[in-house]
Amino acid sequence: MTFIQTLSAAWQKNDSLLCVGLDPDPAKFPGRLKGRPEAIFEFCRTIVDATADLVCCFKPQIAYFAAHGAESQLEALIAHIHARHPGILVILDAKRGDIGSTAEQYAKEVFARYGADAVTASPYMGKDSVDPYLAYAGKGVILLCRTSNPGGSDLQFLDVGGRKLYEHVAELVARQWNATGQCALVVGATFPDEIARVRRIVGDLPLLVPGIGAQGGDVEATVRAGRTADGAGLMINSSRAILYAGKDENYAEAARRAASETRELINRYR
Amino acid sequence: MTFIQTLSAAWQKNDSLLCVGLDPDPAKFPGRLKGRPEAIFEFCRTIVDATADLVCCFKPQIAYFAAHGAESQLEALIAHIHARHPGILVILDAKRGDIGSTAEQYAKEVFARYGADAVTASPYMGKDSVDPYLAYAGKGVILLCRTSNPGGSDLQFLDVGGRKLYEHVAELVARQWNATGQCALVVGATFPDEIARVRRIVGDLPLLVPGIGAQGGDVEATVRAGRTADGAGLMINSSRAILYAGKDENYAEAARRAASETRELINRYR
Repeated sequence: MTFIQTLSAAWQKNDSLLCVGLDPDPAKFPGRLKGRPEAIFEFCRTIVDATADLVCCFKPQIAYFAAHGAESQLEALIAHIHARHPGILVILDAKRGDIGSTAEQYAKEVFARYGADAVTASPYMGKDSVDPYLAYAGKGVILLCRTSNPGGSDLQFLDVGGRKLYEHVAELVARQWNATGQCALVVGATFPDEIARVRRIVGDLPLLVPGIGAQGGDVEATVRAGRTADGAGLMINSSRAILYAGKDENYAEAARRAASETRELINRYR
Repeated sequence: MTFIQTLSAAWQKNDSLLCVGLDPDPAKFPGRLKGRPEAIFEFCRTIVDATADLVCCFKPQIAYFAAHGAESQLEALIAHIHARHPGILVILDAKRGDIGSTAEQYAKEVFARYGADAVTASPYMGKDSVDPYLAYAGKGVILLCRTSNPGGSDLQFLDVGGRKLYEHVAELVARQWNATGQCALVVGATFPDEIARVRRIVGDLPLLVPGIGAQGGDVEATVRAGRTADGAGLMINSSRAILYAGKDENYAEAARRAASETRELINRYR
């Protein structure tokens, strides 16, 4: 299957555009898990099992594992998702970007070692920094376009020939880099007008939209601005608002409730 | 000590602007190391010990470790450099770039876990994606500006208000992001005219220059274009041309010879 086919099947599987971001912060774990050697894996696995029938994909953020030397727990987590929840995609959020020979190593890490279905990457070093990921047929590369952080405008809002840099990136990826149908874009939810601009530029290209929930993005405005004609086209990410919905031992139940509500809210506006 | 003081001391220590890039590729290792469990560490340690009195810094590229699940070997390697070769800087080449809360985790990884002295990062997500690294006083952040790969021009050559994007990044970093004196820039060696342009924009800001050796950059043109008035200001990186100078068991000796020749060639034009 091509990446877009895999993603479309994932959207349909649970009738969901929700992506749950896995940003495990041990300081926020319930007391029962504190100090346990595999706490990061256990916390994430519990969240995954509690929400897997409500999502299209999970997005582990590699920094939260790497800061704790927990690469083996990330491997185990992704293997668990594939084994127990087939059809749900795993996006490794790593925002890679390097020259071809090095990108080959990163591609080996993300696809061969971790077995992820897609990876996030930066466009700053250009097309050949992305090619090694595209060499893995059926895998996806999700390129940073417009990010929702305060400094996102520093470069992305620069005027390049009458439009902003992020709009140029959107067109470059949609028209040139996506020849094999493996690309998508990251567009933050805090600026729905910009999601709409990107959608006009890129046709049906999938968008990964972080920023709802803890970062304050509005679900209705996001979905209306970013959906495709068939009511899909989006992976709408929520991390902290789901992971830490519950303060203590009820965290799985609370996460499930938050994920279910978010999925329904999204579906209301598709 | 501030980052620039540490770097200046490293330049003086061995009278060298040479940075040896550690991109360990097991397929190119001598036969003796093949199949050994700690081969990546052993290969790099041998290169480090053979060249440490000829360099200002070492630059391990994290993808070459991560692709093989060799994070513990990277930890051991950096600890070895600090223990045995004090005063030589370790730049972790990771090209990070993410929102603040995630960048905090990457900063913890690079400085607390690995103990590196500096990290490479992408400017695409703006200033707040860099702040968490700057919170580690005395550590350096080396931002991508002009890269030497074929696709480097895709974004970096875009015209923004009468100059190219990479020139804008150079000015942004030098004038705004470098308030605490912790920043440097990556500028590829394959375009000496562009090194000269960046140097005119950034004053004495340090430049990390990859691309000599295997990538074909010319040492004389690079040094003349990028040196500061005191004959420093540069970390000139060579990876493959030093690591794989020897084809077999003489690799340490061959690496030392290649490093020595490169250092002398650089010094001739300072």
